[in-house]
Amino acid sequence: MHEQFLQQSIALAKENVQSNAGGPFAAIICQNQQIIAACTNIVTTSNDPTAHAEITAIRKACATLNSFQLNDCILYSSCEPCPMCLGAIYWARLQQVYFACDRFDAAKVGFDDRFIYDEIALPPEQRQINMQHIKLATALSPFIAWQTQTDKIPY
Amino acid sequence: MHEQFLQQSIALAKENVQSNAGGPFAAIICQNQQIIAACTNIVTTSNDPTAHAEITAIRKACATLNSFQLNDCILYSSCEPCPMCLGAIYWARLQQVYFACDRFDAAKVGFDDRFIYDEIALPPEQRQINMQHIKLATALSPFIAWQTQTDKIPY
Repeated sequence: MHEQFLQQSIALAKENVQSNAGGPFAAIICQNQQIIAACTNIVTTSNDPTAHAEITAIRKACATLNSFQLNDCILYSSCEPCPMCLGAIYWARLQQVYFACDRFDAAKVGFDDRFIYDEIALPPEQRQINMQHIKLATALSPFIAWQTQTDKIPY
Repeated sequence: MHEQFLQQSIALAKENVQSNAGGPFAAIICQNQQIIAACTNIVTTSNDPTAHAEITAIRKACATLNSFQLNDCILYSSCEPCPMCLGAIYWARLQQVYFACDRFDAAKVGFDDRFIYDEIALPPEQRQINMQHIKLATALSPFIAWQTQTDKIPY
């Protein structure tokens, strides 16, 4: 069962390359063993650096279910999710993830996530993309508004 | 200059809460000191767990520039980017990031990224969302197709 969905994601990823739609990656999301999203990496053709297969699949599955949570869903990815996609997987609260290639396979063909894993672990001021915390008197005002907003949708 | 754009992102974030459009976060992207994207967190109203302010701003800025790279752009965020948004910042290759609140301020109002930072640093099999690497004979076929595709758009 799990292997079958992974095989489908691998086939989709290969097709994605052959049709020149984007990078060699695809992801499938299932709920109750039914596919609710089958998506590929479309970074280059959609001019969207966030359009990794896992992100496009999460967005599609959420649109299908009309929900910003995927608690009872399983994600099948042709490759181990990068740190951005891992973050998205946690925010979407997926139940389980299966992947076929790992980060080391991906690095061999030029998709090396090592740098991003290393950077995320560093304090902001030590990263190679310069990140500065500027302290402002008003900085907390959105959070104060959030705490006092009575009809907010928590998440 | 930088403080002014941060102040605008803080004001936007506060407005976002008051209009019930999403979480207390906003981000602005500038190129040559001109705003090309000013976006907020719309997770709950768009049913998209990836729709953090930084991600929506990166997508908007890329659409505006018709590019999947933002090398000469600066991102101003009302709050320190979470690991998902950090990943997106690296993939978009932004030049610089400024932020007003930090992860500790965010944690105090219920937006705690610590768990995600910790999980990303763990090997997949040790994470709380179960992640399994299933090895399949066909797993590398998308990568082989990628390497032999002559007219691909590298990224």
